[in-house]
Amino acid sequence: MRIDLNSDVGESYGIYRLGADEEILPWVTSANVACGWHGGDPQVMRRTVEQAKALGVRVGAHPSYPDLLGFGRRALQITRQEARDYVLYQVGALRAFCDALGVPLQHVKPHGAIYNVAVTDRELSLGIAEGVREAGGDLILVGLPGSELVKAGQDVGVRVAREAFADRAYNADGTLVSRRLPGSLLTDPDVVAERVVGLARGAVAAITGAVIRVEADTVCLHGDTPGAARIARAVRQRLEAAGVQVAPMGALLS
Amino acid sequence: MRIDLNSDVGESYGIYRLGADEEILPWVTSANVACGWHGGDPQVMRRTVEQAKALGVRVGAHPSYPDLLGFGRRALQITRQEARDYVLYQVGALRAFCDALGVPLQHVKPHGAIYNVAVTDRELSLGIAEGVREAGGDLILVGLPGSELVKAGQDVGVRVAREAFADRAYNADGTLVSRRLPGSLLTDPDVVAERVVGLARGAVAAITGAVIRVEADTVCLHGDTPGAARIARAVRQRLEAAGVQVAPMGALLS
Amino acid sequence: MRIDLNSDVGESYGIYRLGADEEILPWVTSANVACGWHGGDPQVMRRTVEQAKALGVRVGAHPSYPDLLGFGRRALQITRQEARDYVLYQVGALRAFCDALGVPLQHVKPHGAIYNVAVTDRELSLGIAEGVREAGGDLILVGLPGSELVKAGQDVGVRVAREAFADRAYNADGTLVSRRLPGSLLTDPDVVAERVVGLARGAVAAITGAVIRVEADTVCLHGDTPGAARIARAVRQRLEAAGVQVAPMGALLS
Amino acid sequence: MRIDLNSDVGESYGIYRLGADEEILPWVTSANVACGWHGGDPQVMRRTVEQAKALGVRVGAHPSYPDLLGFGRRALQITRQEARDYVLYQVGALRAFCDALGVPLQHVKPHGAIYNVAVTDRELSLGIAEGVREAGGDLILVGLPGSELVKAGQDVGVRVAREAFADRAYNADGTLVSRRLPGSLLTDPDVVAERVVGLARGAVAAITGAVIRVEADTVCLHGDTPGAARIARAVRQRLEAAGVQVAPMGALLS
Repeated sequence: MRIDLNSDVGESYGIYRLGADEEILPWVTSANVACGWHGGDPQVMRRTVEQAKALGVRVGAHPSYPDLLGFGRRALQITRQEARDYVLYQVGALRAFCDALGVPLQHVKPHGAIYNVAVTDRELSLGIAEGVREAGGDLILVGLPGSELVKAGQDVGVRVAREAFADRAYNADGTLVSRRLPGSLLTDPDVVAERVVGLARGAVAAITGAVIRVEADTVCLHGDTPGAARIARAVRQRLEAAGVQVAPMGALLS
Repeated sequence: MRIDLNSDVGESYGIYRLGADEEILPWVTSANVACGWHGGDPQVMRRTVEQAKALGVRVGAHPSYPDLLGFGRRALQITRQEARDYVLYQVGALRAFCDALGVPLQHVKPHGAIYNVAVTDRELSLGIAEGVREAGGDLILVGLPGSELVKAGQDVGVRVAREAFADRAYNADGTLVSRRLPGSLLTDPDVVAERVVGLARGAVAAITGAVIRVEADTVCLHGDTPGAARIARAVRQRLEAAGVQVAPMGALLS
Repeated sequence: MRIDLNSDVGESYGIYRLGADEEILPWVTSANVACGWHGGDPQVMRRTVEQAKALGVRVGAHPSYPDLLGFGRRALQITRQEARDYVLYQVGALRAFCDALGVPLQHVKPHGAIYNVAVTDRELSLGIAEGVREAGGDLILVGLPGSELVKAGQDVGVRVAREAFADRAYNADGTLVSRRLPGSLLTDPDVVAERVVGLARGAVAAITGAVIRVEADTVCLHGDTPGAARIARAVRQRLEAAGVQVAPMGALLS
Repeated sequence: MRIDLNSDVGESYGIYRLGADEEILPWVTSANVACGWHGGDPQVMRRTVEQAKALGVRVGAHPSYPDLLGFGRRALQITRQEARDYVLYQVGALRAFCDALGVPLQHVKPHGAIYNVAVTDRELSLGIAEGVREAGGDLILVGLPGSELVKAGQDVGVRVAREAFADRAYNADGTLVSRRLPGSLLTDPDVVAERVVGLARGAVAAITGAVIRVEADTVCLHGDTPGAARIARAVRQRLEAAGVQVAPMGALLS
């Protein structure tokens, strides 16, 4: 049994600080680094890649809609070609810092609304996947299992990693419980850690109580929830205690 | 005798069209492509690299201060580290399009105010040069002969191309006549063409009438001046008639 | 019979020029001035209000989604409260120039995608209408006849002007023919002018040939279509020849 | 003896939180509200004006260079006309929220680098002052005593408030000790409070030990320094204990 742990980092911007990168990075194996369009800026990108490198955490790009004001969390109606070009631009910008610091770029995980819209939007997903393919370097595209994004990645011929969420409740059909509903967010470190061990084994309890199958290569740990660092540590420790190998998605997929 | 002809292109943004790229590109050998910070956007960048590729024109990055509103023409007080990171970000973004389209990235020419401030600002120049060096790929840094930017490039160990201006008058000391003064801008295609032949030979008449030495590897043709395309064609044709080899800076410097 | 003629103006940005404001403004009675979010900037706003003032054209605000890259033409998922605050911000910014130049602010016409989404989105429309009401000054909100935007304006108690389009084909149900379909855009000045006379009388021929009723207080003349100025002049002259009084919406609604 | 206490507030942006507005506002009499160009956004502006209103704190605009990435702290070379238009735009945007919430707009205090550059730059200062005058409403312009900004305000005929800094050391000539030098920043609440009482009386100890005259109508309390709230409370309480009337600048200057 093997699993990757990923987290969104490098989302500070200029004077503005966000997240607890230093506290989360030690427990994950893959870091999704913001590229300046929803958060992050060139200085934050350099610092974040340096931090990941120092901890041996693999680096990926975390591209977004162009919406700093909305933190990339609002759906924006863009074309397939725009998606392709926006992804390529942001991945290229981050890769320059990776190359300069001698860090390979491992993956691309779309951020926020563009990730969510891509779950069901095939045209958008194809644009994203084409941007990833054009970026070269055998990058891994991260998406929700069963999503149009994952299908698009497979269709255009890029490697794909399926993502589960450590602190989110699942519906019986394998979709995520809406954040607006009670019980959608889990915050008890022990509960979350136990669920991640289950996810590594391919199963998790849905909010209905039914045990469902979730095929995941990587599990997302949110860095901006209260107690994020404690959860991250608990997850990592529980996985290792359970004999689950925690390794970056690039190692798992090869 | 050999010289490179360069021009700033890809400076449109979204719905906004700027310049006459299609008309200028056929006559130059190096294209400075905007990277989205003073002009240009991901779609314009792709289209511009495609155009340059189709015409066999070599591609360079044209990074800027973050100032779309001022088109990068206003000095902004940034640190050496900011300059380094801003250059690296923009070069990386453009390189992604070059890589995707199978076009090598040849050079980096700072745009507008950051180019001008770097003439005399050593700290800024070092930041720019460090960004170029970090970007790798043996990129050529373009700057004014005798400028701090050229010195910084040499100091940090990147290749440097010295640039002259086809349509600008020179003072007797080799500096450019301020745009605010009468006679600073030359618009007669024959006059400009004749001067470029002189620049290729290392000499040009200053505004005082004295003939001065100007050591240039590349000559800039502005695409946004009236009659730009006619000037570009006249320059190219006159150079060839005079037996001057017109070749991209990458070929000249190797 | 009376009708207002409006046009979108002041959409240049920094160095970028857009539209043919000088040529269109002489023929219209109401000007929708961009507020910096999809186009326009403080200097363009001042210049545009000055131009409108010099010609006796009434001034309105033309607020947008925050999307300069997409020129405000892409739907963005914002909340009712965001819409309210975004409208209030932009209207306030423009009003400062109006006040400084002694020009009353007459109306608010949402731009591009936010206008189109508001046709059917009640929550968005309520946010826009609330922003207009909060801006005070008895501003007129401009929207498509029968749209949620017009209803929202009536519901929150602001004056409303219903808008028709001079150069767009109508479906038999009174909606606009999609721009993607052939025949959706009319470019013959005589044809357009004749249709506007019909619109002033409350009827127009749909693309099916059937004559339909369209209740309009103001007719939009696009400034960015080819031959826009000739169309505008033809429309104005034909209206006057037909005895239709052309007057700003503020005069018509009072 | 009377003095105003002011603080910069409303500098959060989108998801990003900055400052401790809730803790500082209860102790000051004037609030400088960011207008979206270095920080602040329409929703933050509304919330901040509401907070100030609830506490009876007078509201002013805090306009900036257009530099969110640099938080308005980097000098940008703009023209007098640009300064005028940028100030007018931002003041207008904020005033819309004030009007909507029934709060009078009291003053304009330029933010960060534009404030600092205006100390010695007459052209920039004239542009700012002209923007304030054009905004109407008898707004007060806040600047450093003896600065070009204060002179420009007087020259163009706007009311002016002179500002001192509670937590900054002064040179013997009345200028501020550079932030880069040791001892430039004072953090002991008692020390700061005692100095503000002195400032209200027109005198303060310079870093040399000499007591110098500082004529101030308003004293700035920084909200982003450690212990800012404790300092603010100490200052306010000490002033009241010393019999100094703490009142908004609008009341002091009338």
